[in-house]
Amino acid sequence: MDSLAPASAKADALRQRYGAVLPPAGPWSETIAGLLDHRSVRGFLPDPVLAGTLETLIAAAQSAASSSNMQLWSAIAVSDPAKKKVLAEIAGNQKHIEQCPLYIAFIADMSRNERLSQAEQTTFENLPYLETFMVACIDAALAAQNAVVAAQSLGLRTVYIGAMRNDPVRVAELLGLSPRAFVVFGLCVGYPDPKAKNEVKPRLPQSTVLHHERYDPAPEAADRPAYDAAMSKFSARNEMQTTTWTQRVLNRMGPLKSMNGREKMRAALARLGFKIR
Amino acid sequence: MDSLAPASAKADALRQRYGAVLPPAGPWSETIAGLLDHRSVRGFLPDPVLAGTLETLIAAAQSAASSSNMQLWSAIAVSDPAKKKVLAEIAGNQKHIEQCPLYIAFIADMSRNERLSQAEQTTFENLPYLETFMVACIDAALAAQNAVVAAQSLGLRTVYIGAMRNDPVRVAELLGLSPRAFVVFGLCVGYPDPKAKNEVKPRLPQSTVLHHERYDPAPEAADRPAYDAAMSKFSARNEMQTTTWTQRVLNRMGPLKSMNGREKMRAALARLGFKIR
Repeated sequence: MDSLAPASAKADALRQRYGAVLPPAGPWSETIAGLLDHRSVRGFLPDPVLAGTLETLIAAAQSAASSSNMQLWSAIAVSDPAKKKVLAEIAGNQKHIEQCPLYIAFIADMSRNERLSQAEQTTFENLPYLETFMVACIDAALAAQNAVVAAQSLGLRTVYIGAMRNDPVRVAELLGLSPRAFVVFGLCVGYPDPKAKNEVKPRLPQSTVLHHERYDPAPEAADRPAYDAAMSKFSARNEMQTTTWTQRVLNRMGPLKSMNGREKMRAALARLGFKIR
Repeated sequence: MDSLAPASAKADALRQRYGAVLPPAGPWSETIAGLLDHRSVRGFLPDPVLAGTLETLIAAAQSAASSSNMQLWSAIAVSDPAKKKVLAEIAGNQKHIEQCPLYIAFIADMSRNERLSQAEQTTFENLPYLETFMVACIDAALAAQNAVVAAQSLGLRTVYIGAMRNDPVRVAELLGLSPRAFVVFGLCVGYPDPKAKNEVKPRLPQSTVLHHERYDPAPEAADRPAYDAAMSKFSARNEMQTTTWTQRVLNRMGPLKSMNGREKMRAALARLGFKIR
């Protein structure tokens, strides 16, 4: 971005993200330019990350807000090729899990605070509730997103692996998790393979996502065809198939088989000791 | 940070976050310095944010990864003082909700994609599952964290308001949400009141949070007393009371009354149309 004047860099960044329908221009920073430039990368060079990178990413992650400072998350860095191979298989053969030099499993972790209740001989009445489960997932997500932003600022790229949830029990066994802990998602980190196409993906117009004072779905109807057209062009340029966003959502949300086993999440989490009242 | 040499700035940032037990030094960037410098702020100046700030924060938020690009979240900017007053009351009288110039409610929003299923006359079999609910919460969290990072890069400060979940039904009514949408948390944004103390909060040592290859709770026992001591000193310097981290967790997780109604979350979400199989 350095070779461009700030105003045009800003316009370019917004155009990449939104296509033709730009939001009003606001204040800007180099950090924001980095955030706007995010794209998920699934092709990595074999180059290792620099020493201390993992610890720096975790320091960034721990600097995110945590509900009541309970810090209901943990991370496991996985580099053992045999383990990464199994994780890649669980995720439906996502080869980038094997390929990336740094793989971090993010854990919604109630087990640590439960050990604290045992050490202090106090019952934690609040553990078995949906609320506490949500807090653990959200704590992990806020932390992970800081790690993503930090990684990108170092020239690294990332992709989240939600497919760890295809089989939470097997993932937990593989990583030796305590009861009341599970991997919410993984994160591949590495230097991007310049041969892989990694264009910034357009998002829904702000008029669909951002509301003022009250929720207003009215603009959606007009926004969706324009976004469908933009996503068709994007997928034609970057992927094997050409589909609209609408079609993608229909494929993903429609038939139960597209959940890849995640429809059994509640039962799997129950096996891992989670009560979600 | 500009007046300090990078190496000492890095050491200072890590010392603020971790106290005496520092992780190994790794690569660094200005963006990472910003992430490490995060602290939640609950005292804001009345100064409005610059024009376009909201839209820039939302552009940053929309640039975060989204599971299968489903974008299962929305945001509502609330500035009506009467509405903010009610939201502050719901949150247990958090005055900074009224005080901050920009308040953003982040919504786990399945309603938009459900409207799409209606428009396309297709049943979305995957909607009523815990998995989809989690994706919506995580999508909202990743987006919000990008907004937080963007805000801080503009000299603004923020605080998450999880207490929107004290009464999700009343919040949804107040903001006119569609069924299958609820406010996961709010976010106060504004310029920090220089009179308010806002020290960086120490976090658990990395040896407690970060594992290698396998989950290992062994270091916790030795880490906790040191962290308790650090948090006691922090609370003595910054807050009315002096307590250890252990005591805080016991207070927060032990008695059901500390959930402030959030133990009824499942029932509240059911009223809002969520099935969480």
